[in-house]
Amino acid sequence: MIGRLNHVAIAVPDLDAAIATYRDVLGAKVSKPVAQPAHGVTVVFIELPNTKIELLHPLGEKSPIQGFLDKNATGGIHHVCYEVEDILAARDKLKAEGMRVLGDGEPKIGAHDKPVLFLHPKDFNGTLVELEQA
Amino acid sequence: MIGRLNHVAIAVPDLDAAIATYRDVLGAKVSKPVAQPAHGVTVVFIELPNTKIELLHPLGEKSPIQGFLDKNATGGIHHVCYEVEDILAARDKLKAEGMRVLGDGEPKIGAHDKPVLFLHPKDFNGTLVELEQA
Repeated sequence: MIGRLNHVAIAVPDLDAAIATYRDVLGAKVSKPVAQPAHGVTVVFIELPNTKIELLHPLGEKSPIQGFLDKNATGGIHHVCYEVEDILAARDKLKAEGMRVLGDGEPKIGAHDKPVLFLHPKDFNGTLVELEQA
Repeated sequence: MIGRLNHVAIAVPDLDAAIATYRDVLGAKVSKPVAQPAHGVTVVFIELPNTKIELLHPLGEKSPIQGFLDKNATGGIHHVCYEVEDILAARDKLKAEGMRVLGDGEPKIGAHDKPVLFLHPKDFNGTLVELEQA
C-alpha cells in the first residue's frame, strides 16, 4: 500500500538557524521559506536527490507544531509522510485494521495541495505518520 | 555535501508487532530480521521505492538504542541517515563549522558495511544525524 517516502518533517525552533545548518553546513539545496497559514506553519524544503526534508516552524497562534516544540525545545523529527495511490482506500483499510486516523477521518488538503491524513503515533511505534495521495 | 536520504531509523519495542504493522497493515516490503551483534541491534528493512525505513530493536545487554526506548516506551524515530561522497572530508568540514561528531570522531563500519559517523542532535535541531559513505 505505501509507496515513496514523500518527506521527513523536522520541527525547528529557529528557522533561520536551521536553514543555515542545512544550506551552509550540510551543503543541501534549500528552498525559500513558504508561509502556509492554513496549516499554521512556515515550511522550508530541503531537496535531496531521492526525497525531501521539510523544516516546519510555527506560524500564527494555533500552530499544530507548537506543542511539539514546547516538549522538544531544540526541535526534532515530527513525522514521516508516505505516498499512497488511493487515500480513501488506504484510510478504509487502516480503519478496518483498527488503526486510528486523526481528526474527523476525512482527508484534508495538505502542504503540497494533495489530500492527506495523519495516523495515530501510538499505532505506529511512536511515529506520527502522514499519508499523502500520490 | 549531503546526498540521498539513505534511511530513516525507527526504534521499536516489539519487533514482531512492528513487522506486522509495516507488512500487513501498511502493505510494505519487509525484510527478515537481521541480527547485528556488533551494533547491538536487530534490524528489519522496509524497502520503499525511493529509500528505506529501518526498524531497530535492541540486541544484547548494551544496545545503543535501549536508552531511547526507556524514554520512548512505544518507540519512535531514532535518526536519519544521509549519504556523503567522502566521509572524512564531510567530517572535517563539519568539525571546522563547530559541529560535534559523536564518539572518537573516527568513522565506524555501519549496518551496511560502509563507514558511518553520527552527529550531535543538539547541533541539528534535535535530530540525530548519521552520515554514511555513499
